Amino acid sequence: MLREHEIEIRVRYQETDGQGRVHHANYFTYFEQGRTELLRAAGYSYREIEIQGWMLVVHEVTCKYHQPAVYDDLLRLCTKVVLARGARVVNEYQVFRDQTLIAEGRSVVACISREGRVVRLPDALLSDLGAEVE
Amino acid sequence: MLREHEIEIRVRYQETDGQGRVHHANYFTYFEQGRTELLRAAGYSYREIEIQGWMLVVHEVTCKYHQPAVYDDLLRLCTKVVLARGARVVNEYQVFRDQTLIAEGRSVVACISREGRVVRLPDALLSDLGAEVE
Amino acid sequence: MLREHEIEIRVRYQETDGQGRVHHANYFTYFEQGRTELLRAAGYSYREIEIQGWMLVVHEVTCKYHQPAVYDDLLRLCTKVVLARGARVVNEYQVFRDQTLIAEGRSVVACISREGRVVRLPDALLSDLGAEVE
Amino acid sequence: MLREHEIEIRVRYQETDGQGRVHHANYFTYFEQGRTELLRAAGYSYREIEIQGWMLVVHEVTCKYHQPAVYDDLLRLCTKVVLARGARVVNEYQVFRDQTLIAEGRSVVACISREGRVVRLPDALLSDLGAEVE
Repeated sequence: MLREHEIEIRVRYQETDGQGRVHHANYFTYFEQGRTELLRAAGYSYREIEIQGWMLVVHEVTCKYHQPAVYDDLLRLCTKVVLARGARVVNEYQVFRDQTLIAEGRSVVACISREGRVVRLPDALLSDLGAEVE
Repeated sequence: MLREHEIEIRVRYQETDGQGRVHHANYFTYFEQGRTELLRAAGYSYREIEIQGWMLVVHEVTCKYHQPAVYDDLLRLCTKVVLARGARVVNEYQVFRDQTLIAEGRSVVACISREGRVVRLPDALLSDLGAEVE
Repeated sequence: MLREHEIEIRVRYQETDGQGRVHHANYFTYFEQGRTELLRAAGYSYREIEIQGWMLVVHEVTCKYHQPAVYDDLLRLCTKVVLARGARVVNEYQVFRDQTLIAEGRSVVACISREGRVVRLPDALLSDLGAEVE
Repeated sequence: MLREHEIEIRVRYQETDGQGRVHHANYFTYFEQGRTELLRAAGYSYREIEIQGWMLVVHEVTCKYHQPAVYDDLLRLCTKVVLARGARVVNEYQVFRDQTLIAEGRSVVACISREGRVVRLPDALLSDLGAEVE
């Protein structure tokens, strides 16, 4: 059971904008990377999950920005699973540079089939993400 | 006084992802474009505002995704000012394809000086965005 | 027969980088938009072409940067077809701000089937892009 | 003297497009990351270089695409310095997935001062990148 995972992200030049800061939209790309790596650390490949016919689509995201991050910063992204039930996974994120909290976010993803129907996530996955299988 | 503005956005191929949908982070780029064009319609240039020393930084964003948008969709983005007071502007957004609501979001931007201090927006701008000047 | 087409592109904040300039990779996104709109002006929808089973994949691109473009610049992109034969289309691009040449590029795209085989473009399209049908 | 450097890049979902492949423009972002890491491996920080008043701007880029890369691929990017002289650095790039060549590119960057004048790169840097100091 894995409910929390941490990765490092080095800020690319392309991710900054004319204010010299990481453009705010890029944090959602970081969060997505956090979800991928949390799954990998739990023994899953999101690529495999998609190939097998489940697709996780983002239903809702939010982010608060506390401090700017700049080019070449080495950020630490902490990704948590706060809920994994039925067809839904809720994650929370915190981005740090050293001990400074840069940003924090939250996302809700929903599992759909290739035909676009909302479907329950595989039980093993729900269980490994720490959810009670109901 | 202008509190609402609408633009059209044609989805670029680069904005889609492997699910064949507009990647969720790109809506924040659309919203930013909506803010720029609302300001322009109100007689302002955000570029001018930055040159004169005010910088609007994003403090918080959120987006809910209702329907996927795909490559070449012609989207309609409606941007509203729901609050413009002191150093803060709060916007709300709705993205439509024809009559279908695709996504809706909200952002809080804060005004800072070149030195990074939070500063009050110019009175004329606050007034033209429909806020009461206090 | 249409071999040349022009569109306007307003630079988005997200497209700039920490140097305050349009990040060089974004010109390829502009070029792609130029190809889409040239096809549309010729009576085609690239989305339709993909749905019908042809896929245009980029084989080679190049770009030279002459002057920086900045946020909110209104750029003019001129897209030309310099060759459309068999499975290949070669385009050239020029980006202007007023009379100033900002960048110029070239791309080679190849047509493949859903199975990934290189296939001849539809004759009508080759013909409408100004190529001799051989 | 360091003229060659290799990094690994894990393909992010956001970097793919509706064709399920890495969008071609993203390779230039990878190449930029390659340049940053080659400099770091040579004992330099490009961020420091910019802070001290030198700015490396991209003058020309090109890329050929041999095989598609997809989400979650672990790519290997090899960055070479083929010339570092005066105000110019020429790099070449190869992107591999295992032994398969995915793409190869080339870039010319020029060094300018804060005022936008073309200026000679610092001698130590030219020397460490393997160029003869003339």
